[in-house]
Amino acid sequence: MKATVHVFLKPGVLDVQGKAVENALHGLGWADVKDVRVGRVITFDVGGTDKAAVEAEVKAMCDKLLANTVIESYRIEVG
Amino acid sequence: MKATVHVFLKPGVLDVQGKAVENALHGLGWADVKDVRVGRVITFDVGGTDKAAVEAEVKAMCDKLLANTVIESYRIEVG
Repeated sequence: MKATVHVFLKPGVLDVQGKAVENALHGLGWADVKDVRVGRVITFDVGGTDKAAVEAEVKAMCDKLLANTVIESYRIEVG
Repeated sequence: MKATVHVFLKPGVLDVQGKAVENALHGLGWADVKDVRVGRVITFDVGGTDKAAVEAEVKAMCDKLLANTVIESYRIEVG
Protein backbone atom coordinates (compact mmCIF):
# COMPACT_ATOMS: atom_id res chain seq x y z
CA MET A 1 0.00 0.00 0.00
CA LYS A 2 1.12 3.52 -0.81
CA ALA A 3 1.43 5.86 2.16
CA THR A 4 1.93 9.63 2.13
CA VAL A 5 2.85 11.60 5.23
CA HIS A 6 2.71 15.40 5.33
CA VAL A 7 4.75 16.95 8.13
CA PHE A 8 4.34 20.62 9.04
CA LEU A 9 5.55 22.82 11.87
CA LYS A 10 2.74 23.56 14.32
CA PRO A 11 1.12 26.99 13.83
CA GLY A 12 2.84 28.74 16.74
CA VAL A 13 6.34 27.57 15.82
CA LEU A 14 8.59 29.99 13.91
CA ASP A 15 9.31 28.59 10.45
CA VAL A 16 12.78 29.94 9.69
CA GLN A 17 12.99 28.12 6.34
CA GLY A 18 9.64 29.60 5.33
CA LYS A 19 10.81 33.04 6.44
CA ALA A 20 13.94 32.68 4.31
CA VAL A 21 11.88 31.66 1.26
CA GLU A 22 9.51 34.59 1.88
CA ASN A 23 12.38 37.07 2.03
CA ALA A 24 13.90 35.61 -1.13
CA LEU A 25 10.57 35.90 -2.98
CA HIS A 26 10.21 39.50 -1.82
CA GLY A 27 13.74 40.17 -3.07
CA LEU A 28 12.79 38.74 -6.47
CA GLY A 29 9.89 41.18 -6.75
CA TRP A 30 6.96 39.15 -5.39
CA ALA A 31 6.11 41.57 -2.61
CA ASP A 32 2.58 40.22 -2.12
CA VAL A 33 3.67 36.78 -0.91
CA LYS A 34 3.09 36.09 2.78
CA ASP A 35 2.70 33.35 5.39
CA VAL A 36 5.21 31.02 3.72
CA ARG A 37 5.49 27.66 5.48
CA VAL A 38 7.77 24.85 4.38
CA GLY A 39 6.93 21.27 5.27
CA ARG A 40 7.97 17.89 4.03
CA VAL A 41 6.19 14.98 2.40
CA ILE A 42 7.34 11.42 2.81
CA THR A 43 5.92 8.81 0.43
CA PHE A 44 6.59 5.10 0.60
CA ASP A 45 5.25 1.64 -0.01
CA VAL A 46 4.33 -0.43 2.98
CA GLY A 47 3.21 -4.05 3.18
CA GLY A 48 -0.28 -5.06 4.28
CA THR A 49 -3.73 -4.84 2.76
CA ASP A 50 -5.89 -3.75 5.71
CA LYS A 51 -6.19 0.04 5.44
CA ALA A 52 -6.86 0.64 9.14
CA ALA A 53 -3.92 -1.54 10.19
CA VAL A 54 -1.56 0.19 7.75
CA GLU A 55 -2.75 3.59 8.97
CA ALA A 56 -2.00 2.61 12.56
CA GLU A 57 1.43 1.37 11.51
CA VAL A 58 2.22 4.60 9.65
CA LYS A 59 1.03 6.62 12.66
CA ALA A 60 3.53 4.72 14.81
CA MET A 61 6.28 5.50 12.28
CA CYS A 62 5.40 9.20 12.48
CA ASP A 63 5.47 9.26 16.27
CA LYS A 64 8.75 7.35 16.41
CA LEU A 65 10.73 8.75 13.49
CA LEU A 66 9.07 10.79 10.77
CA ALA A 67 7.83 13.76 12.79
CA ASN A 68 9.04 15.62 15.85
CA THR A 69 5.66 15.81 17.57
CA VAL A 70 6.83 18.48 20.01
CA ILE A 71 6.94 21.08 17.23
CA GLU A 72 5.47 19.31 14.21
CA SER A 73 2.07 17.96 13.25
CA TYR A 74 1.45 15.36 10.57
CA ARG A 75 -1.27 14.10 8.27
CA ILE A 76 -1.41 10.56 6.88
CA GLU A 77 -2.90 9.37 3.59
CA VAL A 78 -3.04 5.64 2.88
CA GLY A 79 -4.35 3.94 -0.21
CA MET B 1 -5.09 33.26 -2.73
CA LYS B 2 -3.61 30.20 -1.10
CA ALA B 3 -0.90 28.40 -3.09
CA THR B 4 0.65 25.01 -2.39
CA VAL B 5 3.74 23.76 -4.18
CA HIS B 6 4.90 20.15 -3.95
CA VAL B 7 8.54 19.62 -4.87
CA PHE B 8 9.92 16.13 -5.45
CA LEU B 9 13.15 14.73 -6.82
CA LYS B 10 12.69 13.39 -10.35
CA PRO B 11 12.26 9.61 -10.53
CA GLY B 12 15.79 8.81 -11.72
CA VAL B 13 17.54 10.91 -9.07
CA LEU B 14 18.89 9.14 -5.98
CA ASP B 15 17.01 10.34 -2.91
CA VAL B 16 19.60 10.09 -0.13
CA GLN B 17 17.26 11.51 2.49
CA GLY B 18 14.62 8.96 1.52
CA LYS B 19 17.23 6.20 1.67
CA ALA B 20 18.25 7.31 5.16
CA VAL B 21 14.61 7.29 6.33
CA GLU B 22 14.10 3.86 4.77
CA ASN B 23 17.14 2.44 6.56
CA ALA B 24 16.00 3.97 9.84
CA LEU B 25 12.51 2.45 9.45
CA HIS B 26 14.06 -0.94 8.68
CA GLY B 27 16.19 -0.57 11.79
CA LEU B 28 13.09 0.11 13.86
CA GLY B 29 11.52 -3.14 12.67
CA TRP B 30 9.44 -2.02 9.68
CA ALA B 31 11.16 -4.27 7.18
CA ASP B 32 8.35 -4.07 4.61
CA VAL B 33 8.79 -0.35 3.89
CA LYS B 34 10.26 0.48 0.50
CA ASP B 35 10.60 3.23 -2.12
CA VAL B 36 10.80 6.03 0.43
CA ARG B 37 10.96 9.48 -1.19
CA VAL B 38 11.17 12.73 0.72
CA GLY B 39 9.91 15.94 -0.85
CA ARG B 40 8.89 19.32 0.41
CA VAL B 41 5.70 21.33 0.40
CA ILE B 42 5.67 25.09 0.36
CA THR B 43 2.42 26.86 1.21
CA PHE B 44 1.84 30.59 1.07
CA ASP B 45 -0.63 33.37 0.45
CA VAL B 46 -0.24 35.33 -2.74
CA GLY B 47 -2.12 38.42 -3.92
CA GLY B 48 -4.44 38.40 -6.91
CA THR B 49 -7.85 36.94 -7.64
CA ASP B 50 -7.43 35.53 -11.15
CA LYS B 51 -6.61 31.84 -10.71
CA ALA B 52 -4.80 31.45 -14.06
CA ALA B 53 -2.67 34.55 -13.44
CA VAL B 54 -1.75 33.41 -9.92
CA GLU B 55 -0.87 29.95 -11.25
CA ALA B 56 1.45 31.47 -13.83
CA GLU B 57 3.04 33.62 -11.13
CA VAL B 58 3.60 30.62 -8.83
CA LYS B 59 5.07 28.66 -11.75
CA ALA B 60 7.59 31.48 -12.27
CA MET B 61 8.45 31.34 -8.53
CA CYS B 62 9.07 27.59 -8.83
CA ASP B 63 11.33 27.96 -11.85
CA LYS B 64 13.29 30.81 -10.27
CA LEU B 65 13.54 29.80 -6.63
CA LEU B 66 11.37 27.07 -5.16
CA ALA B 67 12.54 24.09 -7.21
CA ASN B 68 15.80 23.03 -8.80
CA THR B 69 14.30 21.95 -12.11
CA VAL B 70 17.44 20.05 -13.13
CA ILE B 71 16.74 17.36 -10.55
CA GLU B 72 13.31 18.25 -9.13
CA SER B 73 9.78 18.36 -10.46
CA TYR B 74 6.95 20.33 -8.92
CA ARG B 75 3.18 20.43 -8.77
CA ILE B 76 1.15 23.57 -8.08
CA GLU B 77 -2.24 23.88 -6.39
CA VAL B 78 -3.93 27.27 -6.27
CA GLY B 79 -7.25 28.14 -4.68
